[in-house]
Amino acid sequence: MSTSEAVWQDLVRIRAESPLVHNITNYVVMNSTANALLALGASPVMAHALEEVEEMAGLASALVINIGTLSKSWIEAMLVAGQAAKKKGIPIVLDPVGCGATRLRTETALRILKEVQPAILRGNGSEIRALHLQEQATKGVDSRHSAEDALEAAQGLSIRCGCAVSVSGPVDVIIHGASIIRVANGHPLMPRVTGLGCAASALTGAFAAVDRSPLLAGAHAMAVMGIAGEMAAERAEGPGSFHVRFLDALYRIGKEDIAGRLKMETA
Amino acid sequence: MSTSEAVWQDLVRIRAESPLVHNITNYVVMNSTANALLALGASPVMAHALEEVEEMAGLASALVINIGTLSKSWIEAMLVAGQAAKKKGIPIVLDPVGCGATRLRTETALRILKEVQPAILRGNGSEIRALHLQEQATKGVDSRHSAEDALEAAQGLSIRCGCAVSVSGPVDVIIHGASIIRVANGHPLMPRVTGLGCAASALTGAFAAVDRSPLLAGAHAMAVMGIAGEMAAERAEGPGSFHVRFLDALYRIGKEDIAGRLKMETA
Amino acid sequence: MSTSEAVWQDLVRIRAESPLVHNITNYVVMNSTANALLALGASPVMAHALEEVEEMAGLASALVINIGTLSKSWIEAMLVAGQAAKKKGIPIVLDPVGCGATRLRTETALRILKEVQPAILRGNGSEIRALHLQEQATKGVDSRHSAEDALEAAQGLSIRCGCAVSVSGPVDVIIHGASIIRVANGHPLMPRVTGLGCAASALTGAFAAVDRSPLLAGAHAMAVMGIAGEMAAERAEGPGSFHVRFLDALYRIGKEDIAGRLKMETA
Repeated sequence: MSTSEAVWQDLVRIRAESPLVHNITNYVVMNSTANALLALGASPVMAHALEEVEEMAGLASALVINIGTLSKSWIEAMLVAGQAAKKKGIPIVLDPVGCGATRLRTETALRILKEVQPAILRGNGSEIRALHLQEQATKGVDSRHSAEDALEAAQGLSIRCGCAVSVSGPVDVIIHGASIIRVANGHPLMPRVTGLGCAASALTGAFAAVDRSPLLAGAHAMAVMGIAGEMAAERAEGPGSFHVRFLDALYRIGKEDIAGRLKMETA
Repeated sequence: MSTSEAVWQDLVRIRAESPLVHNITNYVVMNSTANALLALGASPVMAHALEEVEEMAGLASALVINIGTLSKSWIEAMLVAGQAAKKKGIPIVLDPVGCGATRLRTETALRILKEVQPAILRGNGSEIRALHLQEQATKGVDSRHSAEDALEAAQGLSIRCGCAVSVSGPVDVIIHGASIIRVANGHPLMPRVTGLGCAASALTGAFAAVDRSPLLAGAHAMAVMGIAGEMAAERAEGPGSFHVRFLDALYRIGKEDIAGRLKMETA
Repeated sequence: MSTSEAVWQDLVRIRAESPLVHNITNYVVMNSTANALLALGASPVMAHALEEVEEMAGLASALVINIGTLSKSWIEAMLVAGQAAKKKGIPIVLDPVGCGATRLRTETALRILKEVQPAILRGNGSEIRALHLQEQATKGVDSRHSAEDALEAAQGLSIRCGCAVSVSGPVDVIIHGASIIRVANGHPLMPRVTGLGCAASALTGAFAAVDRSPLLAGAHAMAVMGIAGEMAAERAEGPGSFHVRFLDALYRIGKEDIAGRLKMETA
């Protein structure tokens, strides 16, 4: 099976099975994340109450934890949901949004990594480096380090935590132990829309629900994100129309779009 | 007055009076719900603090309670706002989002139904059945049961709770005691945009603010939702552009659009 | 330097420096506010946890406090973040959303005004009047008073609180002590999209990060908002497409757009 055929097969399964992806995510992106999952063909649910996260995770095919707007009770719910997901054996994706910007974020991400043991850690270069170095130097939630800069950090985290690490940037890098995949799809307008990184994490959850390899699930999700971004940019006049067309592209993306555009390379 | 003329008259009143609709709703759809109400011509306000919901409900012409992302303090605020709305005599709409998926949701919806006595209960088939059967089998917040499947449940709830029950699906069913209205407008892209069910509940609140019949308010809201959906789908290329055009259609929908497209049937 | 050149220079600096704007804002508009800041060229971050707001404000170039959906712990975080911003000497913008509608909002806004001493207070006519009169008569979060009606209130508040006051309306009025600037740009579709007032406050924060005059920062932000609104309206078919094109316009707005459209007048 060719690489592009493998991406396509995962997408076909998502559209056929519509896996339920349980998201505990930040307020900023809840709407756009749910829309990205729906456009892809998955079934999103957002739930954060301590009283229900265990039950909800028990219904889901993947759990996505995103620390973009934290508070105490949410952190507790993330840990409880994570335990339920682990017990059920469904894949967990962690997006350490803004890690390194504040101690609360760095410490929370480290705690989730340790206690919940996600299958895939998905962030930008700054966040992955901050987690690795426990440094305190990122600027907000933007990425100031490219994915390549974070390569060493990602490899260290992957080995130490036993998870795949997916780092977004102009070229995305997905690592699991010694394996490395690079995805060069995407468009410069993508970081001008809030929450597309968070959408990438949610889509990674949907791919992990149908693909047992965290490395491949991570890479295929970034490939579909990037290709949809390229399709969206073709007629976009700015970040507003880009976002609208991006959701349309996630919904419309077909076998030929993937075959014709995929820039994925296994090292 | 013809059926389509009655729908149009309600819409004219909403646009003229711009009723204030107080929403206690979930994080995922707050923005899209406010935009749907504004596009329709109503005046939305979102407020959930225990310290202000009573006052806010006192200013409003309708209260819409949506349990899509619950937590303890929000449940308390929903009950307090509900009591204030009851006291003031304004219509209350309850959307039991994800009811049946977790006990917290089922129990909260049942408690609100009992204590607050909404004029209209508005959900999808799974939610209405779950409420009726107190069953625990829905899949996330999607509808797996059509509106027709839920007919018996809706009739039971309507009689037991003394409210109208509006069930969305390919054919919407609105029931009040022995009266049944079916609305066959809409488009398959609608469930691919997050929060259109929640928007339907909010619009039901706006219609209830100007139409004293819960049955007719419920039916007219679903008709306008469905017709706007059909108008939006005409030039949409996917769920992203569909949603944008849906808001445009709510703003532009005219007497002829309703007269030409309405598929409403009273049993 | 001409007025339009001064607006343009601020915009050039925002795009070059991409100042980090820390927002503690309401759930309804978090996504659209972040997107407006990104489209403009600034770097948004949303953070509200008591445990991290001090640190986050310490990283930022401006702090925007918006009271649109209050609760106790958020009010506390607003005050703590405000103190950190004051200490660091970065400009603070306060948007008293819905002020006058409930006591909680009026009291919270007055408390922030007093304790945090924002550089710029930015609201609509009803809110500014309510703050001035401590009256309890606004209708939801809509503006029922024009900016001109609120002139006296704005002048009183500006003198009493030592801040610039920016009042939106068909003609925006920005006041600092005895200085008055009027901006007549904008479009009637703007109040039909939720959160554009909140976006104006966030953009005011971005302008204040690069322009040391609160009066000019406030006026330039309203000018860019209004001009982007005019550009967006040209091909919009309703509030849905208007909002998409508004974000595109913030991203594309150039020197000639400002020179050709600016309607700014200093009294």
